[in-house]
Amino acid sequence: MKINKYPQREAWPELVKRPVLQREKLTELIADIFKEVERNGNQALLDLNKKFDGVEIKSIKVSEKEIENVESLISNELKDAIQQAKNNITKFHASQITETEKIETTKGVVCWRENRAIEKVGIYIPGGTAPLFSTVLMLAIPAQLVGCKEIILCTPPDKNGNINPAILYTAKLCEITEIFKTGGAQAVAAMTLGTESIPNVYKIFGPGNQYVVAAKEFAQNYNVAIDMPAGPSEVLIIADEKAIPEFCAADLLSQAEHGSDSQVIFLSTDETIFNKTIEETEKQLKVLPRNELAKEALENSHFILLNTIDEALEFSNLYAPEHLILAMEDFENYIPKIRNAGSVFLGNYSCESAGDYASGTNHTLPTNGFAKNYSGVSLDSFVKKITFQNLSQKGLQNLGKTIEIMAEAEGLFAHKNAVSVRLKQENERI
Amino acid sequence: MKINKYPQREAWPELVKRPVLQREKLTELIADIFKEVERNGNQALLDLNKKFDGVEIKSIKVSEKEIENVESLISNELKDAIQQAKNNITKFHASQITETEKIETTKGVVCWRENRAIEKVGIYIPGGTAPLFSTVLMLAIPAQLVGCKEIILCTPPDKNGNINPAILYTAKLCEITEIFKTGGAQAVAAMTLGTESIPNVYKIFGPGNQYVVAAKEFAQNYNVAIDMPAGPSEVLIIADEKAIPEFCAADLLSQAEHGSDSQVIFLSTDETIFNKTIEETEKQLKVLPRNELAKEALENSHFILLNTIDEALEFSNLYAPEHLILAMEDFENYIPKIRNAGSVFLGNYSCESAGDYASGTNHTLPTNGFAKNYSGVSLDSFVKKITFQNLSQKGLQNLGKTIEIMAEAEGLFAHKNAVSVRLKQENERI
Repeated sequence: MKINKYPQREAWPELVKRPVLQREKLTELIADIFKEVERNGNQALLDLNKKFDGVEIKSIKVSEKEIENVESLISNELKDAIQQAKNNITKFHASQITETEKIETTKGVVCWRENRAIEKVGIYIPGGTAPLFSTVLMLAIPAQLVGCKEIILCTPPDKNGNINPAILYTAKLCEITEIFKTGGAQAVAAMTLGTESIPNVYKIFGPGNQYVVAAKEFAQNYNVAIDMPAGPSEVLIIADEKAIPEFCAADLLSQAEHGSDSQVIFLSTDETIFNKTIEETEKQLKVLPRNELAKEALENSHFILLNTIDEALEFSNLYAPEHLILAMEDFENYIPKIRNAGSVFLGNYSCESAGDYASGTNHTLPTNGFAKNYSGVSLDSFVKKITFQNLSQKGLQNLGKTIEIMAEAEGLFAHKNAVSVRLKQENERI
Repeated sequence: MKINKYPQREAWPELVKRPVLQREKLTELIADIFKEVERNGNQALLDLNKKFDGVEIKSIKVSEKEIENVESLISNELKDAIQQAKNNITKFHASQITETEKIETTKGVVCWRENRAIEKVGIYIPGGTAPLFSTVLMLAIPAQLVGCKEIILCTPPDKNGNINPAILYTAKLCEITEIFKTGGAQAVAAMTLGTESIPNVYKIFGPGNQYVVAAKEFAQNYNVAIDMPAGPSEVLIIADEKAIPEFCAADLLSQAEHGSDSQVIFLSTDETIFNKTIEETEKQLKVLPRNELAKEALENSHFILLNTIDEALEFSNLYAPEHLILAMEDFENYIPKIRNAGSVFLGNYSCESAGDYASGTNHTLPTNGFAKNYSGVSLDSFVKKITFQNLSQKGLQNLGKTIEIMAEAEGLFAHKNAVSVRLKQENERI
């Protein structure tokens, strides 16, 4: 932990810097994987599954039978929990559906926007230590709500060639169209290029290791869109004198356990709360199953004592945290001052885990300072907003002259002429 | 023109292919320019202005005096036209401001979203033959509406070191914060890195040549966002028997005059209209000032006769045009069938130029098939949507168990503990 009391303003830019990731240059490796998947399709995926994960499977696609059987592998308790989370996530994302409002900008000129689902989307869910079935909910629910026609999912199989039951169960519950046993960069390549089994998609969502991240970036060369740029997860907590150190420590650690590159920042205006939270963090850390990861993350993290909440908010806006927790009772007045953040948790009972799993908000959020210029995943991430316009004859009469003058001033005479031929014809008719 | 009557379905994928751009590998050149701007700031910009455009200027920043004087350089007629366009664009974009709706997803769990402006945005406006002051309106108006704090503009000076008056006038009218005389990749580098005069920004908007496009892509390595991937402009027209060939031809040519890499597609279900439109296009082309560019563009373009409007819409959805014109009277029923398009123009009097300049919709749109997975520029492009949540003690009681079960199933015990410490404390109080 890096502890800092009342740092000078000049020191802030250094304090808000993210740990620089020593990423290998993966472009060549990724390009090779894309080439192999393009050339050999499914067989490339089977070969790469074997090569990278040591798993031999016969079929890339998860069978109907596997999907049917999964019901029996999940406890009723977990089923109920997933269902409550699904209900909340559905409710919150459904509220983002906007009505089309037609605007008559000039008499006879009517403009509006309509949403259209991105027709084919791909979801990547990593394997590894944490089976992120919650991410299946976060990505499949908005895709379903807007009516994406194809929603496919790729995730690596385990050593026995099976997919984690909770991931499979959630995918089934969310009516994902097809599920495939393939992970890593090759899965992203398959969703980009298509294979005999896997359809190519228009947009790829989901987290992953550095190979997956590099592959998603590379996929953009093939005109595929991605959810957002990647980075390690982070939380910033602002605690006043009403904060509860035990809660703050638990929230800091729930972020820190994500991985050794996670970052947590604790800002407080109250020295007692500040010191107690540091103590509590060390205490809770000891009994945590993933404490090795959390410990490493904490080493990169800052505990900073500041003079006022306003100052803390300024610091936070400069840092632009993925998750921001206002650990205070009187948070209302500070909401308008939040300018850069991914998702904000208000008050002592709004822990980050609530948003990670079940409150209804999306947990796919901008990290690494991207909260300055990107939003988290929402319904918007799965649609295009198409503009429409209809000009009546009268409408074009009202607007035509303006268009002609502007087009001529830009030296674009065919643009002008598209109006002139229409106005001329009207005059002839009159 | 490539004329095709009733092509087989199997031929469609070939017909919707964009002309492949022979882009040079610019990465190294762009990286060098970024390095030079990083090292030498303003001086690098002055040197590169001289090197690439042969222009020597003393100061990068447009002075107050230049801005004041521009009023006298613009005709009243053009001023009025720009004002009408500004009113309409403002009206349409203001209608996109959405209300915050708070959703109680579970009793005691309240979630909502709020918009926050991206604080610092940069607009690039190219020089060259067409002074695109209309693009200033399209980008500065939504930035103003959402309240971006800094809105800067870069555009190259002419041989005399001046900025095109119409661009300057429009920038002034839209209250752009600062205007700079610099163009090309170096302008993008300056907005990314900042110089003594030019502030670095969080998102860069605007069109440009291949150097600007490559520089915008490169800027993303510095965590700067960009408006959307670039590509040449395009229009697809669907004409039924009520279409007016003279209008269709004028619309095709207004797209074709953008540049030799523009693409126009004409689909019709009526052979008479089809043939007449081809004739008209050739006729109007002859008298066009920019007919060399338009002629080249037409060579890459398709005129295709099809059996039904439904079939034409399917073709259009596969092509995913930037601009789609339904040149027919009875367009209402076809709107729901449009799945991929940037902006749609309905009926015989809705010419593309209307949307390019003054109807109110934005003209910064996805090209090159990106209408399958990207929206055009709108108010959304200038904001982040931040999610907020507040759980009361009761709210966490109602949701806590679900979070604990899910976190445990993902193996994330600190996530679980963040809930447990809060529930435990409640129990102790009871």
